[in-house]
Amino acid sequence: MKASQFFISTLKEAPADAEIVSHKLMMRAGFIKRLGAGIYSYMPMGLRVIRKVENIIREEMNRAGAIELLMPVVQPAELWQETGRWDKMGPELLRVKDRHERDFAIQPTSEEVVTDIARQELRSYRQLPKNFYHIQTKFRDERRPRFGVMRGREFTMKDAYSFDRDFESAHKSYDAMYAAYVRIFERMGLRFRAVAADTGAIGGQASHEFQVIADTGEDAIIYCEQSDYAANIELAEAVPLIAQRAAPSLPLAKTPTPGKSTCRDVADLLQLPLARTVKSLVLASDEKNEAGDVVKTIVWLLLVRGDHDLNEVKTGKLEGLKAGFRFATGAEIEDHFGCKPGYLGPIGLKKPVKIVADRTVANMSDFVCGANDADFHYTGVNWGRDLPLPDVVADIRNVVAGDPSPDGKGVLAIQRGIEVGHVFLLGTRYSKDMNATYLDEAGKPQLMVMGCYGIGVTRILGAAIEQNHDERGIVWPAAIAPFTVVVCPIGYDRSADVKAAADRLHEQLAEAGIDTVLDDRGERPGAMFADWELIGVPHRVVISDRGLKDGKVEYQGRRDAEATPVAEAEVFGFLREKLSA
Amino acid sequence: MKASQFFISTLKEAPADAEIVSHKLMMRAGFIKRLGAGIYSYMPMGLRVIRKVENIIREEMNRAGAIELLMPVVQPAELWQETGRWDKMGPELLRVKDRHERDFAIQPTSEEVVTDIARQELRSYRQLPKNFYHIQTKFRDERRPRFGVMRGREFTMKDAYSFDRDFESAHKSYDAMYAAYVRIFERMGLRFRAVAADTGAIGGQASHEFQVIADTGEDAIIYCEQSDYAANIELAEAVPLIAQRAAPSLPLAKTPTPGKSTCRDVADLLQLPLARTVKSLVLASDEKNEAGDVVKTIVWLLLVRGDHDLNEVKTGKLEGLKAGFRFATGAEIEDHFGCKPGYLGPIGLKKPVKIVADRTVANMSDFVCGANDADFHYTGVNWGRDLPLPDVVADIRNVVAGDPSPDGKGVLAIQRGIEVGHVFLLGTRYSKDMNATYLDEAGKPQLMVMGCYGIGVTRILGAAIEQNHDERGIVWPAAIAPFTVVVCPIGYDRSADVKAAADRLHEQLAEAGIDTVLDDRGERPGAMFADWELIGVPHRVVISDRGLKDGKVEYQGRRDAEATPVAEAEVFGFLREKLSA
Repeated sequence: MKASQFFISTLKEAPADAEIVSHKLMMRAGFIKRLGAGIYSYMPMGLRVIRKVENIIREEMNRAGAIELLMPVVQPAELWQETGRWDKMGPELLRVKDRHERDFAIQPTSEEVVTDIARQELRSYRQLPKNFYHIQTKFRDERRPRFGVMRGREFTMKDAYSFDRDFESAHKSYDAMYAAYVRIFERMGLRFRAVAADTGAIGGQASHEFQVIADTGEDAIIYCEQSDYAANIELAEAVPLIAQRAAPSLPLAKTPTPGKSTCRDVADLLQLPLARTVKSLVLASDEKNEAGDVVKTIVWLLLVRGDHDLNEVKTGKLEGLKAGFRFATGAEIEDHFGCKPGYLGPIGLKKPVKIVADRTVANMSDFVCGANDADFHYTGVNWGRDLPLPDVVADIRNVVAGDPSPDGKGVLAIQRGIEVGHVFLLGTRYSKDMNATYLDEAGKPQLMVMGCYGIGVTRILGAAIEQNHDERGIVWPAAIAPFTVVVCPIGYDRSADVKAAADRLHEQLAEAGIDTVLDDRGERPGAMFADWELIGVPHRVVISDRGLKDGKVEYQGRRDAEATPVAEAEVFGFLREKLSA
Repeated sequence: MKASQFFISTLKEAPADAEIVSHKLMMRAGFIKRLGAGIYSYMPMGLRVIRKVENIIREEMNRAGAIELLMPVVQPAELWQETGRWDKMGPELLRVKDRHERDFAIQPTSEEVVTDIARQELRSYRQLPKNFYHIQTKFRDERRPRFGVMRGREFTMKDAYSFDRDFESAHKSYDAMYAAYVRIFERMGLRFRAVAADTGAIGGQASHEFQVIADTGEDAIIYCEQSDYAANIELAEAVPLIAQRAAPSLPLAKTPTPGKSTCRDVADLLQLPLARTVKSLVLASDEKNEAGDVVKTIVWLLLVRGDHDLNEVKTGKLEGLKAGFRFATGAEIEDHFGCKPGYLGPIGLKKPVKIVADRTVANMSDFVCGANDADFHYTGVNWGRDLPLPDVVADIRNVVAGDPSPDGKGVLAIQRGIEVGHVFLLGTRYSKDMNATYLDEAGKPQLMVMGCYGIGVTRILGAAIEQNHDERGIVWPAAIAPFTVVVCPIGYDRSADVKAAADRLHEQLAEAGIDTVLDDRGERPGAMFADWELIGVPHRVVISDRGLKDGKVEYQGRRDAEATPVAEAEVFGFLREKLSA
């Protein structure tokens, strides 16, 4: 490809609304163009990357036995009503009425449509398992679209759906997709981690996120260097940091802590480690009657160590909170604790509250907590002596780096990640709602067991850049670079020698199936090099009269600090070797 | 590809709502699945055809210098308001509000978005010409979606847009696209015709439709076998069928024609050729003031020969009717002609009407027309003698087969076609509305001259089938068949010889890059053959023990009446030769 026949448009500065590096670089390198909030056109340079990403995904999906089809973007509301998602999904689901006032959804995913196909097409156990996928435009009306393609509204997603006769078989389909995803992200040259994720309220059986490792990632990934344990922070199990509760050694004392409403401030004031303090969080759960009126409210006090954070997903799994919870109101707190937030604790309650202690808190002794009296904390608090044992002991905190791994094989570490893929063993959640059954050997209808498997195609561009960039621009992994090699002739229009050498190399590379761009735009060398470094092409060959005089050209890998002279006669072989390495 | 690893789903009967053969066959062969009115899922078999169609289009677009990008499906209303299409397009434009109540269009085409990109990106004459295209999901909310993919609501379209510095250059871009389209449809193996089309009211400069020839086509294509003249019926010029008006030979006579209100009935009654009669059509044009109130109405009488039909597109180009026209009301007719329709004519008007005679009518003599008196016609009518010459003489009729070609080189014929592509030299219609300018050599801003070029990707499937089918099913042209070769082993599971021979041929063909499916489903031969004939795979090889005993397999082309025995050892070479032919 000659650059003059392509479209290259780079910018010195990123627009002001680009907050993160991948967004800035994609705008500057001319990969995307903003059309509206969270809506982008993919410019020719960006589309080349998308196509390479799609091709890798397609090859590995096909290899894993999945079958490609294409489901519509505009989908009838009736199907979404069958599963209840029409009502359950909030404003994120873009809804539209056609000329006959019929309701449609602009697809964010396609569970409903694919299940509708499956219930019509897959009638016998002999037709199972099947896995259908498509690579198609999706829309999610994000409240606050941002970060370019990372949290856009319109995006391209690969979504696959497996249908199996039972859970045993479904687990195999799931494992096959997991393995395909590993191959996909490996082939893309990304550093990633598959982490166990919460299966949520819909009763899934297994779930893993594929996270591209990047310091700027929105997600916290928990992993163990001594084992293969990895989970996202919502799921990662926090074991008790104290194996057994020690006997009390301090007396209970009400201590003035004027104006010190945080654990950190109290610990500093009392010159104690933060790990000696206990944080109080007050939630409320409402019981409603059929008319939706609140008939009963329970107030909950959740206790986590002062240096820990409450995990809301784990909290939502507590018996009594599964149906939902909220923060307690100021009035409810005053009513139950007789005190304002900042000095709350489990001792001396005005009305009964349900007390949940994190596993670690339950084993603490001589700890510090609020005294339910403004500007006072208790010190030397001990379970069983100063207050009854907690009503519930549970894992309700986020793990922190250095925690023991729940598999007992080492300690946990935390890194940041960007979710680019998700595999989910759905079970019968959709097949049940939509009555998607097959006939088993006995001719009896059975619900199909489903899995769903997504990859954010366009998001991968952002994630790959967050992971692979430097101060000069993007550093694409070769497999998904817009071009693999750029040939930069200096004086293409002026020097017949340079032109001949550049054309020859370009042709050789193209014939060998190596995706090459020849920059014949006539830019000055500095601007030309800056463009391709910004764009992030992994291999560059500079051809100049000065070099050719000595029979040399210059090779520089995108991560190399400097150029390497290579004999012009050997540069094609040199590159071919580099690329096969 | 082994059939067992793919998804094949055929039906004996097409669903009742499938009206035309392509729709029936696509449903029966499992290419598409209906999701809603005019909305289909493309099943794996159908998607294979789509991908082949897209690849041919993409290769030829790239070869012609067009550059692929990807523009969004959901597009902000603001851009559509700039060109006025937000208001001008009726309910066919699917409109949606996001969570912030902002308006968006679900794209039916992308003129606005691409022009927005161009006005930002193409700033200098040095960057022109440019041609951007994408292959993307479109939506058009048809009032009456039908005929499967032929008139669906959601569909895939390739739309390209060229930007040039002036009309001369734009014509070159147009010609390049025209040539690319010819290559595209030739490579697809379709019989087609490029026909000149009307450039409409938006001031385009040139327009051609690419029509796939099929008896079931919705469009009438006019062409000349003696020359390369071809146009659609809206545009095709009708020359006068009478070179010069003959002198009157009959007296004017008012003749009773009771109950005979059509030209056909009158001709039969009077035992005259239909070509001696003249048909009267009454239109009205309203002049409105700025408030939109009608301030003046002109009534028009249009005269075409009794065996001809009025052409509304040509009529709309008449001075005075360009702004729009309607059929006259009963009251207006009564008021101007003093007579009810069926007996109207240009003689003896009660109030002035503007008389437009078709070119042929203007040269007729001794003709028959209504007498503006119920149940009476005039015979022996002659211009200049019985009535003044017409106010306007113009081409206002559809051509008919046998008309002289307007290029003077033969006679016209008519065939039916299905429009699958359209090239249109837009001029500055969009660049003007959106102020898409570039700086010329003098640094002066100039409007870009645009062209747009569409191909209905999914519609091509329907058109190809309408053109290529028989009583057994689809007969795909090889280039866009879902598979090129099907290997049908008889007893794949029972006979080691059959299995070995089938696997061997399958592997050989796959290695040679020939898209082959091996039917290992274990169907009975009759059902297996019927499936592949319905699906329309162009080449079939049957491998059986009976044949192998003699070292033979059977080859049958999809259009062949019977099978040809081929030595098993030679069948790969035989197929390779067939396919390269």
